[in-house]
Amino acid sequence: MIFSSDNAGPAAPEVMAALMRANEGYAAPYGNDPIMDTVRSLIREAFEAPDAMVHLVATGTAANVLSLACLCPPWARVYTHEAAHIEEDECGAPEFYTGGAKLQLLPGDHGKIAPETLRAAIEGTDHGFVHTVQRGAVSITNLTESGAAYTPDEVAALSSIAKEFDLPFHMDGARFSNALVGTNATPADMTWKAGVDALSFGGTKNGLLGVEAVIFFDPAKAWEFELRRKRGAHLFSKHRYLSAQMEAYMTDDLWLSLARRANAAARKLSDGILALEGASMLHPVDGNEIFAAFPRGAHRAAMAAGAQYYLWPFNQSLDGPDHEPLSCRLVCNWATTDEMVEEFLSVISNA
Amino acid sequence: MIFSSDNAGPAAPEVMAALMRANEGYAAPYGNDPIMDTVRSLIREAFEAPDAMVHLVATGTAANVLSLACLCPPWARVYTHEAAHIEEDECGAPEFYTGGAKLQLLPGDHGKIAPETLRAAIEGTDHGFVHTVQRGAVSITNLTESGAAYTPDEVAALSSIAKEFDLPFHMDGARFSNALVGTNATPADMTWKAGVDALSFGGTKNGLLGVEAVIFFDPAKAWEFELRRKRGAHLFSKHRYLSAQMEAYMTDDLWLSLARRANAAARKLSDGILALEGASMLHPVDGNEIFAAFPRGAHRAAMAAGAQYYLWPFNQSLDGPDHEPLSCRLVCNWATTDEMVEEFLSVISNA
Amino acid sequence: MIFSSDNAGPAAPEVMAALMRANEGYAAPYGNDPIMDTVRSLIREAFEAPDAMVHLVATGTAANVLSLACLCPPWARVYTHEAAHIEEDECGAPEFYTGGAKLQLLPGDHGKIAPETLRAAIEGTDHGFVHTVQRGAVSITNLTESGAAYTPDEVAALSSIAKEFDLPFHMDGARFSNALVGTNATPADMTWKAGVDALSFGGTKNGLLGVEAVIFFDPAKAWEFELRRKRGAHLFSKHRYLSAQMEAYMTDDLWLSLARRANAAARKLSDGILALEGASMLHPVDGNEIFAAFPRGAHRAAMAAGAQYYLWPFNQSLDGPDHEPLSCRLVCNWATTDEMVEEFLSVISNA
Amino acid sequence: MIFSSDNAGPAAPEVMAALMRANEGYAAPYGNDPIMDTVRSLIREAFEAPDAMVHLVATGTAANVLSLACLCPPWARVYTHEAAHIEEDECGAPEFYTGGAKLQLLPGDHGKIAPETLRAAIEGTDHGFVHTVQRGAVSITNLTESGAAYTPDEVAALSSIAKEFDLPFHMDGARFSNALVGTNATPADMTWKAGVDALSFGGTKNGLLGVEAVIFFDPAKAWEFELRRKRGAHLFSKHRYLSAQMEAYMTDDLWLSLARRANAAARKLSDGILALEGASMLHPVDGNEIFAAFPRGAHRAAMAAGAQYYLWPFNQSLDGPDHEPLSCRLVCNWATTDEMVEEFLSVISNA
Repeated sequence: MIFSSDNAGPAAPEVMAALMRANEGYAAPYGNDPIMDTVRSLIREAFEAPDAMVHLVATGTAANVLSLACLCPPWARVYTHEAAHIEEDECGAPEFYTGGAKLQLLPGDHGKIAPETLRAAIEGTDHGFVHTVQRGAVSITNLTESGAAYTPDEVAALSSIAKEFDLPFHMDGARFSNALVGTNATPADMTWKAGVDALSFGGTKNGLLGVEAVIFFDPAKAWEFELRRKRGAHLFSKHRYLSAQMEAYMTDDLWLSLARRANAAARKLSDGILALEGASMLHPVDGNEIFAAFPRGAHRAAMAAGAQYYLWPFNQSLDGPDHEPLSCRLVCNWATTDEMVEEFLSVISNA
Repeated sequence: MIFSSDNAGPAAPEVMAALMRANEGYAAPYGNDPIMDTVRSLIREAFEAPDAMVHLVATGTAANVLSLACLCPPWARVYTHEAAHIEEDECGAPEFYTGGAKLQLLPGDHGKIAPETLRAAIEGTDHGFVHTVQRGAVSITNLTESGAAYTPDEVAALSSIAKEFDLPFHMDGARFSNALVGTNATPADMTWKAGVDALSFGGTKNGLLGVEAVIFFDPAKAWEFELRRKRGAHLFSKHRYLSAQMEAYMTDDLWLSLARRANAAARKLSDGILALEGASMLHPVDGNEIFAAFPRGAHRAAMAAGAQYYLWPFNQSLDGPDHEPLSCRLVCNWATTDEMVEEFLSVISNA
Repeated sequence: MIFSSDNAGPAAPEVMAALMRANEGYAAPYGNDPIMDTVRSLIREAFEAPDAMVHLVATGTAANVLSLACLCPPWARVYTHEAAHIEEDECGAPEFYTGGAKLQLLPGDHGKIAPETLRAAIEGTDHGFVHTVQRGAVSITNLTESGAAYTPDEVAALSSIAKEFDLPFHMDGARFSNALVGTNATPADMTWKAGVDALSFGGTKNGLLGVEAVIFFDPAKAWEFELRRKRGAHLFSKHRYLSAQMEAYMTDDLWLSLARRANAAARKLSDGILALEGASMLHPVDGNEIFAAFPRGAHRAAMAAGAQYYLWPFNQSLDGPDHEPLSCRLVCNWATTDEMVEEFLSVISNA
Repeated sequence: MIFSSDNAGPAAPEVMAALMRANEGYAAPYGNDPIMDTVRSLIREAFEAPDAMVHLVATGTAANVLSLACLCPPWARVYTHEAAHIEEDECGAPEFYTGGAKLQLLPGDHGKIAPETLRAAIEGTDHGFVHTVQRGAVSITNLTESGAAYTPDEVAALSSIAKEFDLPFHMDGARFSNALVGTNATPADMTWKAGVDALSFGGTKNGLLGVEAVIFFDPAKAWEFELRRKRGAHLFSKHRYLSAQMEAYMTDDLWLSLARRANAAARKLSDGILALEGASMLHPVDGNEIFAAFPRGAHRAAMAAGAQYYLWPFNQSLDGPDHEPLSCRLVCNWATTDEMVEEFLSVISNA
């Protein structure tokens, strides 16, 4: 009963098999392996973007910050949600890679930025005034940090504001697959057709060992990206092992199948939790993350039974009356089994 | 007959097997996996350094530049060989990670820095004069970029000069295993006993998919290192897959066995080449790299037969008289077979 | 009737005279001029800080960001007021000089941070968690950006919280003289006795051409500061011209006399404005800055008569009913005359 | 008898007078003062460059590194002379401001780079290879660090190579006036007509208190320059005092008159030195700097008589036989008098 993070789960067997196959013989290093050619084609095809720039890195933070460094100069600001991973969980990597750009933090329900909030922030920046950090780029996260999904229309509403001010638009898609499955959107609908310029296309949380693709729909920045990746120390010599993971991921829609499993588990889990008296969902469950509140007694029972997950925020106490609700985060992944979900629901409903 | 680079070879089967084993079930992310505890113990034991700081990253450049950033402030210089990987092959990653430190390039035969060269460079730096980039750190590479190995005594001769000036001493050990095997030194003799403060301990070129350990023999900088790694985007969420590779590597001396195979292949290959009329070695063959000169006709024959390797320097022409010697680099790895070597020797000796 | 900024005013005649005197003959460059020795002594004496590190720079931004770069590592955050000059008016210079540190913006009336706000922000930072930008430093501004002065007790209340968490404490004193005069505090009371570690001691806004002193009460960082100043391109070759300004400033308490004049003019001006029907002060007038609201008609009259100052915020319209109050900022300086104030008051009271 | 540096000399009386005049009344800050409009016009006129971007900073290092940061991306290299000020005397400011670009050091007599040396360095850079720091910009110094002047033809020979590879061309003109006077070239001939894209136009060493102009002949980078200047903390609030200095400098060719005086003094001094037995010039005396060798006995006599200058290199000893020549640097400035020169010559010729 481990719901602590999708980072804690294993890689998919298809991916491991691809890794074994890729280990045969010799291969050109540094991204010149033939598997990477296949990966590029598969991603371009999936996104209906025949000219897209496609590069692989091994961490989600690398994908985000290398992208932002290409999009936002050091003297400008990235408009982003106050709970965004780039703000909360990257130890200043965006500032490091951009050479000192500033993140401007925007509030918003369920991890989403409202169009009027974005517009006010951009308009409120005294762009052209030399004393001010200038307008730079917009970055949203889909799935959001609260487990909600932006629809393509919602993305387009934001990107059209960015475009109005000539600002590039980045999407942190660490859980992009879950967002797609949750909205039934196509990759193209959710990205370039909705005005996304650059996507951090996550793989690690959805069944890979550690690979993310960076996709720029306009390839103009490709060479700059490569140089930034190299001097960021993110160009792999034995690159074939990244390629192989991503090839397996993109083959036969494995990436979507894995996300479907994770989302279905989260749905089953959230439905079960809502059946508890005193339980509620804090955010929409659009993907594989659940932010739920339910009675302390049920939490105590779950943890006593070995369930692993985080109270969210962390600073709540398990000590206190049984009936008081505590909020928590539960994350499913492709490997989450029905049995695991059922056992959890059984424990908390019998608490 | 692929001798282009040890980066082109496969990972060892023991490593792949470890990866498969590590994929079972759930594991705490971000370096908190239990395999990492084992890795730390194994490396400390191998280096006879019970307090050493041990961290994993996925590229050799990351290992080097995160180390140097901890050792050298932005306003100081790193004394290093003019052919060093940090100068030639990292696209300015050292400057990026240190915040603008300067590499001071030193000449030296076979990729080695002579003690008197290092002393003159350090003494020649007007340390304490505010206009000058200050003395910072010393970085050597072992195996050198020319395939030669420093002995522990040679390392100590350099580090004692560094210590005299209170400068930290870094070793880029991308091919550390090959250097150890080539000199019959123990890990401790070659590092902390010889005055090395921080080691980039290579795995990728010697049979891993992509893992290097950074070892600081004094753990005082451990927390700074972790923060720099995180904001460099080099902390892996599914860290267990790095740990598993390194665990296999350190188990039953696999790392030394793999290096022994590579070195033996290089020895056999260089002996065979030297049997050619007009052939010579440009540098000592102390590890798995050969820098050889032999007749153009033999190069033509080898390449016609499908051999892959680089003329070194690149700008030599295959067009011209058969008998003129051209220089080249040939690199063996753990997977280089006797057959491959013999076929190559047969082709060139029959040219 | 120019109240747009204390930056728009002239330098004091004593300062110009000192500049002329300093121009005689030759002087050692780069801060080695004998006048700098005098400056150092005068400042140490004025602050009762015989060991303080004293360095000169030419802009307030340089003073702030060089200080912060010495106090806060790249992976940490500076707790500061949301209206602070380092956030609003330095185009990201703090991020540039610190190598990417983050400013955490705190609200607070009149430009002041309340102790409980600071404590909550520091405690809310998940220090020691590698994913988070760490706790770094605290920076306050005195006079604040709203023209209010912190008393020594208020400063001490904040710095004691910083000390509890081992965080260095910086004061942006671009209008430090005005704050001192406004509170009747001694320099020592307002700084090191109240827990200030580093002070940007302003001169430019208070009658110099362009000089600020950076004072570190603990000289441990002196050499690092000098190196950062040099590589920031802020070490002047003909340094004597900076020294001469500061020498005149510190002689016979000129700095306090100049500030007294500016504060008195602001007091007279604010008193006069408050006599208007419908007028109010938005913030305490503790120094030389006034944030006032008064009827639009009076603004129109003032501007028609040639008065120069800013509506604050900028986006208010002069078009509309006469009686509606508009808010504005009015800044006095040492050269503001009684006549200028009286003329302004006459114009607006007759509107 | 002070020949230690042109930084040690005073400012010209015309400049001091302009400063006094500029101190009247109020002026818009941050470069919006009306004097700056005049400065811009005067410089554009002098350089026959009606569209040139003109900005002022207070130090030569600021002029150089802000220019280079606009011309060279972080992942590229600046080709420059090994004795260049940007390499030797700026404590890594170029690396800091460019975000980690690399200086590639080229040898060359008299501080000059030979065309074939530049070409070889550029061609030798493996541009387009992602592992290599890329080609970035070329920077030369005129007067060179050895006191020699490039002629316009020599400049054009270098810039045409840069242009061939699409590299921008920067001139560090800390002593530009002396070079112009020494070569009888016009400002336009020496700069944009000779292919210079950006000039650090020195004033400080030639009679100002501390002002340099940065001139970009193509104004495309003007806004980026302003943002970099601001976040470098080099935008002055009371900017009029910079403007006033430069206005005086450009009025009635004061800048050229001052340089003529300095060069004439240097000529007289070098002629006198050469009359000594055993004396020689190490470099051409094209401007106001002399690099001479003459007998140790004469040095001893000069220093005993109070002459101030540097043995060059520093590490020569005054102890030893009288007749042995020691080399030194002697720098004249606009204020160097005939009496000073004659006294010096008298002392050394009577030694």
